[in-house]
Amino acid sequence: MALAYDGAIQRLIDAFSKLPGIGPKGAQRIAFYILGSDEREAADLADAITEVKAKVKFCEVCGNVCEASPCPVCLDPRRDHSIICVVEEPKDVMSIERTREYHGLYHVLGGAINPMANVGPNDLNIAKLLERLGDGSVTEVILALDPNIEGEATTTYLSRLLSQVGIKVTRLASGLPVGSDLEYADEITLGRALSGRREA
Amino acid sequence: MALAYDGAIQRLIDAFSKLPGIGPKGAQRIAFYILGSDEREAADLADAITEVKAKVKFCEVCGNVCEASPCPVCLDPRRDHSIICVVEEPKDVMSIERTREYHGLYHVLGGAINPMANVGPNDLNIAKLLERLGDGSVTEVILALDPNIEGEATTTYLSRLLSQVGIKVTRLASGLPVGSDLEYADEITLGRALSGRREA
Repeated sequence: MALAYDGAIQRLIDAFSKLPGIGPKGAQRIAFYILGSDEREAADLADAITEVKAKVKFCEVCGNVCEASPCPVCLDPRRDHSIICVVEEPKDVMSIERTREYHGLYHVLGGAINPMANVGPNDLNIAKLLERLGDGSVTEVILALDPNIEGEATTTYLSRLLSQVGIKVTRLASGLPVGSDLEYADEITLGRALSGRREA
Repeated sequence: MALAYDGAIQRLIDAFSKLPGIGPKGAQRIAFYILGSDEREAADLADAITEVKAKVKFCEVCGNVCEASPCPVCLDPRRDHSIICVVEEPKDVMSIERTREYHGLYHVLGGAINPMANVGPNDLNIAKLLERLGDGSVTEVILALDPNIEGEATTTYLSRLLSQVGIKVTRLASGLPVGSDLEYADEITLGRALSGRREA
């Protein structure tokens, strides 16, 4: 017996090991779970994978993932079509939707400027954003990128670019996370919270 | 827009969330990874899941997972057919194979005695083990169960049962893990290491 499982099991472990956040031990655990699960559950998982590749595309307007393009958000007449919130990834749209505080439109860049990974402005969905701003119906663009180096670089790039278009450009507030301890905040976050202080 | 993704994406996230060790965030990350991966990789994963359910069965002799029953280990004439190592799960067979120290046969119980989960001796693959010991060709049974409460209970049960058959029954040594610190060993492990001491 070789130090690998019999054909099909090893192929399943290998396939799961390639997914993000799953190591060899986790993949083995999942493979045996699938082996022990009922036929229906395993078939559902396999079908869900095949289906997502077949059905899901990117919205031609905002770049978010969807099954019909334009996506339901871009077509929704109850949403405020004068504000666009720019995010890096489709999952960021979901994070902002969960706040229930935002009712405008979105624009998904598909990443952030990252010279180390060879991602420049031309690799992002920026041309389409400028096109959407062309007809004057949008009055504000909210830059909601990740508060890390790549996100900051992209925010700086976009805010310069959009200031030329003459549209109000805002960004998410930096500060202390709600429920956190002041004692454990890093200097940069605490500095931002200070400089962004508001009347109580 | 609802607070869930469009159809197919949400179904994929839900399917992955059911797997052990994957939470909602991890499932979302994997779903978007699959969405961004090439067609081939996604098809490979879906096929591997379908294939494992179709092809893999349990060896009629030892109870291990395999594609052909009896499994290659049970049929291998180069292995020592006079020793059987009893383990809880198929993955334990792989762990012991990796040591390259064992060349006998295996017997997979499919679990351990666990009254809290309603698993008794009759739920385990024990009758088949007694059957294998019937013809007198086996001279030693190694009990290699997990060193936890359920494993210990099963070890005690099996060693009593097999002593009636009149076969040599051994169990894995308890003691300090190699590379560990004596200072951090728990009392039970250190106690076992002391009582099991050998001449240096």
